[in-house]
Parts: sequence; structure tokens; C-alpha cells
Amino acid sequence: MAAKCKRPARKCFKSNFRIYRGDEIALGPGKVELLRHIFETGSISEASRRMGMSYNRAWLLVRTMNRCFKEPLVSASRGGDRHGGAQLTGFGKQVLTLYQRLESKFLAATRQPVSQILARLRN
Amino acid sequence: MAAKCKRPARKCFKSNFRIYRGDEIALGPGKVELLRHIFETGSISEASRRMGMSYNRAWLLVRTMNRCFKEPLVSASRGGDRHGGAQLTGFGKQVLTLYQRLESKFLAATRQPVSQILARLRN
Repeated sequence: MAAKCKRPARKCFKSNFRIYRGDEIALGPGKVELLRHIFETGSISEASRRMGMSYNRAWLLVRTMNRCFKEPLVSASRGGDRHGGAQLTGFGKQVLTLYQRLESKFLAATRQPVSQILARLRN
Repeated sequence: MAAKCKRPARKCFKSNFRIYRGDEIALGPGKVELLRHIFETGSISEASRRMGMSYNRAWLLVRTMNRCFKEPLVSASRGGDRHGGAQLTGFGKQVLTLYQRLESKFLAATRQPVSQILARLRN
């Protein structure tokens, strides 16, 4: 999710992007956040905790991403005492980098018209 | 709504933007489409018909936009035989133009990373 603004901002701009493969969301704000946390923590379990999401839900999102892309984005083994470890694959890192480029290009390109629209809102 | 793709595309990218004022959506995909139709037709009634939306709903969206911005975007009189006429104000045309600029800048800036991500999806 790019340019998300938090309450209690009176005026804000929100955007979101989703990549679909058929009916499935291959990549969206939640899945990208999950990838970032997996990259940082090396663990689906810890990533899900940070997001306030159940381990099962996080695992489901990972499975969907891995199924939608030509190669898996996350390499992980389910279960075990510590629910196994998890890493982004090289391919997963590529996709995450592309998404981050998408976000930063988006922010740079839209900053001016967005601020001009926000300036026209009542306070 | 920028870059919205239609079924039955197997792979697609969808995005949307919303401008909030407090809890209200001052501008989003539906409201912008409504503004475009009002601009083209000079009528909220005809604009709502084109969108498959009730007249009351369209009127509600117009009221919300007019309330959120410093000046009204649409000048209209409700009711009467032909539900009155409606026009974008000069201020409304400015805001619509800014939104269109936002969309086109967005599309130009994101085309490359989007196509690179889509190319990594399974067929």
C-alpha cells in the first residue's frame, strides 16, 4: 500500500495496487507486507505475529503467492516446533524489489497532483 | 480507477486511489466517473443512468463531494420534471483535470515495473 495515511489526518490520499492472476490476488498490500516481514525475520510465524495475523492465514497467503508466480517467492517448511524457517527466494526478492520500485515511482509521479487536490479540500 | 483491467484477462494489475477528508471519501473511482458523466451529459439523472446507479445515490455522491471541497464541484438543482440540469463548476473542472493528471502520471510511471511483475506470473 503506497501513500497510506494514518488517522487522525483530516485529509489524506490512499492508494492500493493489486496484481491478479485469474481470480486470485497474486500480490497486494497485505502479501507484500508479509514478504517484507519474512525477509526481515526469516520466519512466517514471526512475520504473522508482527502483522497481527494467524500463522495459518500467513501460510495461506504464502501458498497463494507461490502458486501464482512462475517460481516460489518464499521457501518454507510448515510446522515443527518453531514452525520451520522461511526465506525469500532469489525470485521472491526480485518481485519484492519490483513492487518497491512500483511504489516509489508511483509516489514520485503523483506527489504534485495529489498535493494540489488535497489543497482544495476544506479543512 | 487507473489501469483497471477487465475479465477475462488472466493477469492484470488493478489500482485505486481515494482522497479522504476525515472519514469521508471526497474523491474515488466512482465519484470521478460520475463527474466525467456529468461533464459530458450536463445531467445527474443521465449520468446516473449511464453508471447503472440510482439518481438518489448519484445525488448523494455529489453532495458529499461538494461538502468536502472548499468550493462545490457540481452545480445542480435537485428534482423537477427532468431532475434539473447539472454542470461542473470551474473548480470542479480543475479538480477533475488534476485527478486525470494523477492517473496519467501514475500509468506512465508504473508501466515498466508492472509489466515486469506480470511477466513473472504463471500463465
